[in-house]
Amino acid sequence: MRVYRIQTIGNLDGLVAAEEPTPVPGPGEVLVRVKASALNFRDIVTIMGKSPFPVKTGVIPMSDAAGEVAAVGSGVTRFQVGDHVVNTFFPKWYGGPRAPSPEMYGSDRDGWLAEFKVVGSEALSLAPRHLTFEEAATLPCVAVTAWSALAGVRAGDTVLTQGSGGVAVFALQLAKILGARVVATAGSAATGERLKKVGADAVVDYVANPAWAEAVRALTGGRGVDRVVEVGGPGTLAQSINAVAYGGEISIVGALAAGDSGLDFMSLFMSQATLRCISVGSRSDMEALIRAVDAHAMHPVIDRVFPFAEAKSAWEHYAGGKVFGKVVIRH
Amino acid sequence: MRVYRIQTIGNLDGLVAAEEPTPVPGPGEVLVRVKASALNFRDIVTIMGKSPFPVKTGVIPMSDAAGEVAAVGSGVTRFQVGDHVVNTFFPKWYGGPRAPSPEMYGSDRDGWLAEFKVVGSEALSLAPRHLTFEEAATLPCVAVTAWSALAGVRAGDTVLTQGSGGVAVFALQLAKILGARVVATAGSAATGERLKKVGADAVVDYVANPAWAEAVRALTGGRGVDRVVEVGGPGTLAQSINAVAYGGEISIVGALAAGDSGLDFMSLFMSQATLRCISVGSRSDMEALIRAVDAHAMHPVIDRVFPFAEAKSAWEHYAGGKVFGKVVIRH
Amino acid sequence: MRVYRIQTIGNLDGLVAAEEPTPVPGPGEVLVRVKASALNFRDIVTIMGKSPFPVKTGVIPMSDAAGEVAAVGSGVTRFQVGDHVVNTFFPKWYGGPRAPSPEMYGSDRDGWLAEFKVVGSEALSLAPRHLTFEEAATLPCVAVTAWSALAGVRAGDTVLTQGSGGVAVFALQLAKILGARVVATAGSAATGERLKKVGADAVVDYVANPAWAEAVRALTGGRGVDRVVEVGGPGTLAQSINAVAYGGEISIVGALAAGDSGLDFMSLFMSQATLRCISVGSRSDMEALIRAVDAHAMHPVIDRVFPFAEAKSAWEHYAGGKVFGKVVIRH
Amino acid sequence: MRVYRIQTIGNLDGLVAAEEPTPVPGPGEVLVRVKASALNFRDIVTIMGKSPFPVKTGVIPMSDAAGEVAAVGSGVTRFQVGDHVVNTFFPKWYGGPRAPSPEMYGSDRDGWLAEFKVVGSEALSLAPRHLTFEEAATLPCVAVTAWSALAGVRAGDTVLTQGSGGVAVFALQLAKILGARVVATAGSAATGERLKKVGADAVVDYVANPAWAEAVRALTGGRGVDRVVEVGGPGTLAQSINAVAYGGEISIVGALAAGDSGLDFMSLFMSQATLRCISVGSRSDMEALIRAVDAHAMHPVIDRVFPFAEAKSAWEHYAGGKVFGKVVIRH
Repeated sequence: MRVYRIQTIGNLDGLVAAEEPTPVPGPGEVLVRVKASALNFRDIVTIMGKSPFPVKTGVIPMSDAAGEVAAVGSGVTRFQVGDHVVNTFFPKWYGGPRAPSPEMYGSDRDGWLAEFKVVGSEALSLAPRHLTFEEAATLPCVAVTAWSALAGVRAGDTVLTQGSGGVAVFALQLAKILGARVVATAGSAATGERLKKVGADAVVDYVANPAWAEAVRALTGGRGVDRVVEVGGPGTLAQSINAVAYGGEISIVGALAAGDSGLDFMSLFMSQATLRCISVGSRSDMEALIRAVDAHAMHPVIDRVFPFAEAKSAWEHYAGGKVFGKVVIRH
Repeated sequence: MRVYRIQTIGNLDGLVAAEEPTPVPGPGEVLVRVKASALNFRDIVTIMGKSPFPVKTGVIPMSDAAGEVAAVGSGVTRFQVGDHVVNTFFPKWYGGPRAPSPEMYGSDRDGWLAEFKVVGSEALSLAPRHLTFEEAATLPCVAVTAWSALAGVRAGDTVLTQGSGGVAVFALQLAKILGARVVATAGSAATGERLKKVGADAVVDYVANPAWAEAVRALTGGRGVDRVVEVGGPGTLAQSINAVAYGGEISIVGALAAGDSGLDFMSLFMSQATLRCISVGSRSDMEALIRAVDAHAMHPVIDRVFPFAEAKSAWEHYAGGKVFGKVVIRH
Repeated sequence: MRVYRIQTIGNLDGLVAAEEPTPVPGPGEVLVRVKASALNFRDIVTIMGKSPFPVKTGVIPMSDAAGEVAAVGSGVTRFQVGDHVVNTFFPKWYGGPRAPSPEMYGSDRDGWLAEFKVVGSEALSLAPRHLTFEEAATLPCVAVTAWSALAGVRAGDTVLTQGSGGVAVFALQLAKILGARVVATAGSAATGERLKKVGADAVVDYVANPAWAEAVRALTGGRGVDRVVEVGGPGTLAQSINAVAYGGEISIVGALAAGDSGLDFMSLFMSQATLRCISVGSRSDMEALIRAVDAHAMHPVIDRVFPFAEAKSAWEHYAGGKVFGKVVIRH
Repeated sequence: MRVYRIQTIGNLDGLVAAEEPTPVPGPGEVLVRVKASALNFRDIVTIMGKSPFPVKTGVIPMSDAAGEVAAVGSGVTRFQVGDHVVNTFFPKWYGGPRAPSPEMYGSDRDGWLAEFKVVGSEALSLAPRHLTFEEAATLPCVAVTAWSALAGVRAGDTVLTQGSGGVAVFALQLAKILGARVVATAGSAATGERLKKVGADAVVDYVANPAWAEAVRALTGGRGVDRVVEVGGPGTLAQSINAVAYGGEISIVGALAAGDSGLDFMSLFMSQATLRCISVGSRSDMEALIRAVDAHAMHPVIDRVFPFAEAKSAWEHYAGGKVFGKVVIRH
């Protein structure tokens, strides 16, 4: 089978293709014919050598995939050959609190940028029936992250999303099916228009309004938003604290925007907000997300699909920024 | 001003109109010009002498109303003359756990079937801006009850509603804006059609299928529903337990359907369901409901509106059953 | 190795010893040298042919055990040879919602009444360090059940326990370390005295007072208890509903007491109580329990320990009732 | 009656005694004969002109008091003359979410440093029966704050408290009755000894170990603490993030320690902790606290009691720092 491995750390040239034997599933394991994989910010961070987590050189990258069950080992009852499956982001976080040092694909162990992959049967879920493999591959990391970041949001709440990356666009779509109103920030009028088409009720241009919190607050009658899905981190947190409603919540899912810590202690305290760090989610969370995606026949937003042979172009495109939704590789 | 009082208990003839002086608000109080009131099952139960709660003969009935602030007493800052308001069902349950022996309008103290009423300013909320007084008057009891009964429901869940009474129709509408799928039971094909128009995804005829749980289960791929909004009580609970998903929840809000207790202990235990009794909700709950109704520009479903002078006809119509949504009196 | 199997269903004579080859752990598996196992009501129910769950004749019984890791298969990182471990009741419920048809030891698959057993490494937890194997073996079923049944209880609450069985005694001990006050029912003055020694703040004799709810209510100044750990089921639920505080919770963990369903619908509704069915708990729950047991150096209450060769006597003793705490078999 | 008012802002000399007429309770109001009041950090901040909240010059200061009901207005049913009562910190936060701009004693409206005070009957709770007035007066602000900051803590958890101020000492006492283990930081060996006497399981000297998080982590086997009751704020938050367990929670209740924001964004994100801002609590929270204090016959720790005539000395003593527990004024 064909696979890609991160042979050197430092830049995208580290990504190298190879031919390897197709693995065989042992007891309790499943062989997945990978049909699509999806890129995340952490894949770029990992190959650039900037990951805060341990990375093993030579690893097969990428954490998100969808495919077909090609074979099952002895004792496997969860799946049958032919089932359409997606992997869970953390192979062993099934529910309950997450372990501090979890196993992670594409950093300390082989990921999914391969034609086939063997995993334990507990590390997969059935894919939503109405999605293509390309669409299903986008779920494991960012969709579950967005779902976790929206925990507790309900009809009548207002949610703030930031930009047009994977988590932000899923958060927008999921917040709408939860009955929330969505205010989205955007870096350009064109992006803002696309976010409105995906469902945003209002858009604020963060380039034109660096102090965008004021505009967000005005859009909520001065009350502020009930939930911020914070992807910017250091560079946006100060505005998020100004934009959040008294006693609201900021779900911190990433640190995409450069800046200092952005946290003025008294501003936080006067806002009475809660800052909650989000780390994707468990298999239980993913299954709940899949039920919601299924029930609403929701389709993930895909920026662009690249063929497996051009995986490196996919990485280059994604690393260039300016994406809207997910970048996917068709295997 | 004109008012109605329950002068005798036993049948609807106990409802008698009278002319009384218009009250004056004291410190911290508000005078409401009542514009509409809405009937609930408990109003009928009360006048028939079947209420499980203490009832004071001579009381002004009805617990749900909307109106305009006509005057405010000293020290009132929450409202101004001209504000459109609705009352909370329990005048002193603002949030937190409910007291065991709460004050209740229309049973142990005067209710809202009057042209004017004075209450403490903390016992009112601003009405949703897009609703008529007739619509807003339907919120205090059944809409808040339905909202409380749906606590924790989110996109991807399936909710079961029973029939076409006030709680059931609100639960259907609210479940939809929460992103849930709704299976509704109905006593006739015609009612079923109307429920579908209000948003039901599927309908089961409980007259044609007395063992309707089976049909509900089939509609959910065998899984059962995640939440039952149980209004029937003794007469429907056995079916509800059969219809609920493993580990699901049955919110008990009423006891409209005659029958024995309906609970087979081992059926309940094997279902691993939770039975949660619901008693309307607090002012906090009502405010959250109003935000949701506002955000979705939701309109309550009104069965019929009667003029104040024909209040007794409204009671007779409602007591006759066969209503779809709320019966309202225009003051 | 020596094992016991349920060779016939119907009475305790179905329990038959045999000599079998010691199993070998495969990849991801652990070989446990079982040092102690503990009996539960469901073991008796199973061999008597009264289990509501599917039972496979010929199965090794018992679901609760503690032992030492004797060998590990390839890829196991959670444990090392020599570790003291306890099993989780459900081998694959790690956290999140429980599956409707879980795998269960001693009914549809081999349990722990054997000198050695091989299980997946995810199906074990480290035993609390201060406990003997006999003590640790009591945790998987009843201690986790009691812990789950007390979820949400905190200092200032009053908890009602029923009798002196395994769940009741653990519930008493755990409620005390959670800061709650405990009222225990007892079938005799002698049992009541023992319950007080274990920590009960007050005891009510349910034989002398068949309508014991009244006495419980008096002990709480009329308020009722905040939580009932309901082990009786049909035969006690009516009293439990009378004994619970307005808006309190009854955690249903079993059905030990014969009787009709015991549920008067209007009594339940007027109590505004929640009935929550409990099915032991996940590995996450067990780990939280173990942390609590560890932190408080809590010791399980053992009724009697039997040697492995006399396992049948243990079953007879336990089936005879009149136990106080857990019946354990030393392997 | 004798009262004190803050006649000028800037230093403690602004506190001036006066003779005023005793107020009379109106409808729904209660006249309290104040027997004791307790100082909080915000009282000092307010008179010094450093409060972030609006302050009205001339106001009667202090937010916490206990006393006896001296008279009740018409319609009051919650209390009778002679009842021992404590006030709630926020006069109108009964439960549910707190309003963004609440009424607060001693800043925008008259507080409790007076011989008598009239308040609405809903703004009081019955005092715990086993406490003196001096002890009961300490509850409204810091005890409720500590209780709120510990929400969700249960047996087996470890809680970190900081120093020996009012919130810290209550948090220590309350964490113990919740079954938690407590690690306390202290500024001296002597303070550490006193904290141990109050119940701390371990003490870390933050003067001797400016990087005290390491020592705290070592005391928890490397795991970190499950909950931090953060009173230092800017000056301690960085250490708190290092000391908290993966996925744990830091309850932010104050900002006593000078310093920069103390928040390194990536440290927070890698800790996966939640930062939750706490603003005292509602009447519901206070009632739950009082039940817990009652059930455990817990006694607040009082640093020193001053007579009413020497109220200014109490303020000076408290402003000087170096207190252990609460500073109380006997009226």
